[in-house]
Amino acid sequence: MNLQKLFDPNSVAVIGANNTEGSVGYALMKNILAGKTREVYPITLDEKEVFGHVAYTSVTALPKTPDIAIIAIPAPAISKILKECAEKGVTTAVVISAGFKEAGEEGKKLEVEMRETADKYDITLLGPNCLGVMDAHTQWNASFAVNSPLKGGLGFVSQSGALGTALLDWANREGVGFSKFVSLGNEAQLTELEFLEYLRDDDETKAVLLYLEKVTNGAKFLELARSVTEKKPLVVLRAGRSARGSKAVASHTGSLAPSDKVFEAALRQAGAIPVDSTDTLFALAKLFELGITSPLQNLVILTNGGGPSVNTADLIGFSRSLELVEFTEKTKGELRSVLPPMAAVNNPIDVIGDAGPQRYKDTLNILLELDRIDAIITLVTPQMMTDPKDIAKVFVEMKHKKPIIPVFMGGDTVQSGIEVLHENSMLSFSSPANVVAALDALARGAPKPEGEAATHNTSTHLTMLPLEKMQRVLEQFNLYLDGEYVKHPDEIQGALERLGNGPYAMKAISTDLVHKSDLHAVKLNLKTAVEIEASWHDMQHYIDEHTKGTRAAARQATIEGVLIQKMVRGVECIIGMKRDATFGPVIIFGLGGIFVEILKDSSMRIAPVTMEEALKQIHEIQGLPLLTGARGAEPVDLEALATMITSLSTLALEHPEIEEIDFNPVFATPTGTSIVDARMMVK
Amino acid sequence: MNLQKLFDPNSVAVIGANNTEGSVGYALMKNILAGKTREVYPITLDEKEVFGHVAYTSVTALPKTPDIAIIAIPAPAISKILKECAEKGVTTAVVISAGFKEAGEEGKKLEVEMRETADKYDITLLGPNCLGVMDAHTQWNASFAVNSPLKGGLGFVSQSGALGTALLDWANREGVGFSKFVSLGNEAQLTELEFLEYLRDDDETKAVLLYLEKVTNGAKFLELARSVTEKKPLVVLRAGRSARGSKAVASHTGSLAPSDKVFEAALRQAGAIPVDSTDTLFALAKLFELGITSPLQNLVILTNGGGPSVNTADLIGFSRSLELVEFTEKTKGELRSVLPPMAAVNNPIDVIGDAGPQRYKDTLNILLELDRIDAIITLVTPQMMTDPKDIAKVFVEMKHKKPIIPVFMGGDTVQSGIEVLHENSMLSFSSPANVVAALDALARGAPKPEGEAATHNTSTHLTMLPLEKMQRVLEQFNLYLDGEYVKHPDEIQGALERLGNGPYAMKAISTDLVHKSDLHAVKLNLKTAVEIEASWHDMQHYIDEHTKGTRAAARQATIEGVLIQKMVRGVECIIGMKRDATFGPVIIFGLGGIFVEILKDSSMRIAPVTMEEALKQIHEIQGLPLLTGARGAEPVDLEALATMITSLSTLALEHPEIEEIDFNPVFATPTGTSIVDARMMVK
Repeated sequence: MNLQKLFDPNSVAVIGANNTEGSVGYALMKNILAGKTREVYPITLDEKEVFGHVAYTSVTALPKTPDIAIIAIPAPAISKILKECAEKGVTTAVVISAGFKEAGEEGKKLEVEMRETADKYDITLLGPNCLGVMDAHTQWNASFAVNSPLKGGLGFVSQSGALGTALLDWANREGVGFSKFVSLGNEAQLTELEFLEYLRDDDETKAVLLYLEKVTNGAKFLELARSVTEKKPLVVLRAGRSARGSKAVASHTGSLAPSDKVFEAALRQAGAIPVDSTDTLFALAKLFELGITSPLQNLVILTNGGGPSVNTADLIGFSRSLELVEFTEKTKGELRSVLPPMAAVNNPIDVIGDAGPQRYKDTLNILLELDRIDAIITLVTPQMMTDPKDIAKVFVEMKHKKPIIPVFMGGDTVQSGIEVLHENSMLSFSSPANVVAALDALARGAPKPEGEAATHNTSTHLTMLPLEKMQRVLEQFNLYLDGEYVKHPDEIQGALERLGNGPYAMKAISTDLVHKSDLHAVKLNLKTAVEIEASWHDMQHYIDEHTKGTRAAARQATIEGVLIQKMVRGVECIIGMKRDATFGPVIIFGLGGIFVEILKDSSMRIAPVTMEEALKQIHEIQGLPLLTGARGAEPVDLEALATMITSLSTLALEHPEIEEIDFNPVFATPTGTSIVDARMMVK
Repeated sequence: MNLQKLFDPNSVAVIGANNTEGSVGYALMKNILAGKTREVYPITLDEKEVFGHVAYTSVTALPKTPDIAIIAIPAPAISKILKECAEKGVTTAVVISAGFKEAGEEGKKLEVEMRETADKYDITLLGPNCLGVMDAHTQWNASFAVNSPLKGGLGFVSQSGALGTALLDWANREGVGFSKFVSLGNEAQLTELEFLEYLRDDDETKAVLLYLEKVTNGAKFLELARSVTEKKPLVVLRAGRSARGSKAVASHTGSLAPSDKVFEAALRQAGAIPVDSTDTLFALAKLFELGITSPLQNLVILTNGGGPSVNTADLIGFSRSLELVEFTEKTKGELRSVLPPMAAVNNPIDVIGDAGPQRYKDTLNILLELDRIDAIITLVTPQMMTDPKDIAKVFVEMKHKKPIIPVFMGGDTVQSGIEVLHENSMLSFSSPANVVAALDALARGAPKPEGEAATHNTSTHLTMLPLEKMQRVLEQFNLYLDGEYVKHPDEIQGALERLGNGPYAMKAISTDLVHKSDLHAVKLNLKTAVEIEASWHDMQHYIDEHTKGTRAAARQATIEGVLIQKMVRGVECIIGMKRDATFGPVIIFGLGGIFVEILKDSSMRIAPVTMEEALKQIHEIQGLPLLTGARGAEPVDLEALATMITSLSTLALEHPEIEEIDFNPVFATPTGTSIVDARMMVK
């Protein structure tokens, strides 16, 4: 399908053209005539001339065959007009008019009829019910939009006209330019597929942006999307992702939005970039217009103010794929040589508040030579000594060596700098959040080596409290470690009688053995005192064998006694306390084992924790259904769990010498809770 | 501590005042004199008069005691000057000058000395190294910022001056006003705590915004924060949340940022609103200035363009706490009576592109009477027929009945509307994402009833393929259900011989029994053919008893045979296929049981899935460490899992009649994979 005439016709018939300001026919004429010189033929019954151009009463009456017909007359008349266009030899048409599928049964019929006419006469048809089509490079605006686009590299295709007008108006202010701009309307014939293919092969288009409420043909879409992303980035803002959004799409276009998760997976698989909001769409548009079309992961922040750069560093820290480059001592030395002593020469680099353009320039001169840097985010905040214009000029001057991403934060004070950028085909972001979101979206698929978080490891140099001491502390707060502690095999039988029927679990107690199961120091499913005594001996033997020559051996790792417990069943939980330097005791709750360790599914409270807060804390974890009766299980006693949290909170406040407490595991059952293992750490 | 003189002094000494444009002493004088009339005394050795005010050489030489001293002279001289202030009876001072703690050891000493001087002479001291302090209501700007704030209800306290200047510049452009504005600097004496307390009790302050890099006293902070949130909202932008951000804080202020997760938990517990970016901070500031200070959950979207409203609906759909109100038929009828037939009267309400002010007004008149609505998000996109000014006037006129949240999307075309809003103490957002993020942040703690997602249930009216048919299909693609299927007890012994050593698991096979374990149709740990046969009979008996009178019984739920498998160990996985209406076969991978069902931890691909994509798919799940050898386990054979995914993908493409396939569980081991149970659904 040849779409060339849609984007750069030499001659145009405007059917429904008129001189009445505020009408669609007027706006079309105005926009078309504002571009480069073309033969323009207004078609109207009401006027002799429109915008100074001789008007004709019918396409058939034209002195020559126009390359394209732009149609804005009432829906019922359009099929007939299309036939006349065909008679005259017109091969391309845009139907702006509404009143088709979106208007109910009658309109649906009109749309089918129109489409059949177009197909029959081999007319390439965009619309109906669309804003129109624009090409900034051929100065062609066949739309009734209020603006014309700036020239640039973005190909935009939209299933919403309003989103298009908002984007265009925003883009003009922000200095973002387009190659092609297409409003699809009802897609009676041409769909997003034909334009994807066209923009893929269009050299003016450096990146493609799509707004989609439906997908015409999933398999074909994926195939095309894949072929686009091999050449240029493709960003897709999906609509109708949520149940309510999906309903809104149905009422907007009468179409079913694709299932959200599937659509997202499909886009990723095709190498496209799914985005969730117009903000991220707009931010990516800016990156593309800055010439950034492939993933940039290794970043530097250059700032004249501490706070905004720390926030930017945090946003990068929590991103999925971005990294701040670590400078070598050599680089730091170079930076120090051009910056005042108060400046920070780590990354972020803070050239501080009184920095003029030269200081930005000197710093950039050093950074732009470093291979390991993909891009530099340059933050400029309003400062008394700062002339944003001059700093902007530095960015313009140096932008060719490496991508510089300017973020001028503020309002009128920094506006003059932004204007300098616009005059020189550069752009500015207004805050770091959108920059980071857009860079992260672009770099996805290349996840960063490890997840990061600010860790303050307080566990070093702590020692474990012996079992009996710990039990005495716990008892003060009505907390009891499950089971019987025996120090000599002779006591086993008595312990079993107190515990009642088995089977039993047995654990070796030794302050040297922290990770019990690693050392085979736990035995399960024991039934008699004899079995327990035998296991005790086996354990000591095992420990002796396996700690030979280790530090544990040096400290004579012996079993001080064993803890005998009934085999407990229930949902495995962890309840713990860690003393924070700023806030004091933090109480942690989570499901046991992998849930806390691998899935990081836990919740926190600062002591003192009330019953109400403890219940809220329990309800915050993702795995809550496992406690409240998932898969037909009986719900556990949440009140008992909450009581344990509040008791631990009180204990932590009254015993400031205890740095860490772990109840792990705690088994939660429908009738209560049981602490199966515990440890306390002191300084 | 009385801070009144800090915010509304009658007389001021400006120490370091001068007439040199571009200096801090000049900027201070300019800003102070721009406010309401106060007695201003410049103190300087260099000039006779500053800004037309007689200059003095020392505070002690002043004709009267000033209420406050604003100090901007080199750090080493300040302690001496503070003593002179004390001699004169000055009780409040702001030290703007840098060169203290942030400047190294020497500066640290100067700061200690200054602080001790202030304490000794009972001087209330803000700073050093700060931007200054402002009060928009008393027209007081004792800072060297480029702007003065507009009058409003926001109390802002910041540990970064640059973040303050950026916020202020932005706020002036956006029409956001402040009550108090405090730059804390190094906090030699006054900290965020004193200002939290002050702003809590300040009637001009309707909401408090904090930017924090450190917390002076965690317990005190929490207590104060709690007392603030009982009266007004408190928003906190934390810095140093990530490892890199934390390092940046250390180099910015020399302080340790609190552990991120703990700080966030602490803030939530205190009822404060933690935010992650300046964007959300700014957006909340706007909501507060619109008078929205308590949670609003039940929303309506009113728009003149479909696309942006669908995106807004999606953002609300995926929010944690916001809801779109469902209209009654009565309301829809009322809306229909004032809107054209093409308009959408669901929520979002689309008054369509040619809507003038009257249509917005008529709609709002209906909405503002409805009790169940908390607020209305009004979207205005640039449209040819739309005059943003007149629509803005409607919002101004009607804002008193219920909160109206205007979102004028675009650039210069909608600017005139935004200006009308500013002239009338209203505001506009530029896109829906920030509105939704801010409303969601404000409403947190009141989570919405259930998580939502667009679900397209395709499972209705599907029937299960019988086992033997399924096995024939699987075998074509080298997929094998684990174990031996036997139809008669006589075959058991032979099956056991083929399987090798037990123990075995046994499953009843019946197309009626989908959820096997619910019906006790699985037996584990069987050792002999005799045990298996006995279990077979037990099962049929159990099924007969438990399906009496149910639909299963009506269909004569009999066991058609049993599947005997060796007891398999390994990591439980699920591999499945579901045919999507748009994209065709979707292949799903996840860990078994609760991981998929409760934690929703799965990843998807659209068929065809290559080996490379299958491996990527496996690596996307959160629980990946369980497959790659967490807790000392041996890693499973990921290639074997990936091969199974690619085979399933091919199967799905070649058998379009199969709608769904579940391999559940699949056990993954270090040496291979094993499909323990499977089902296929056809139409």
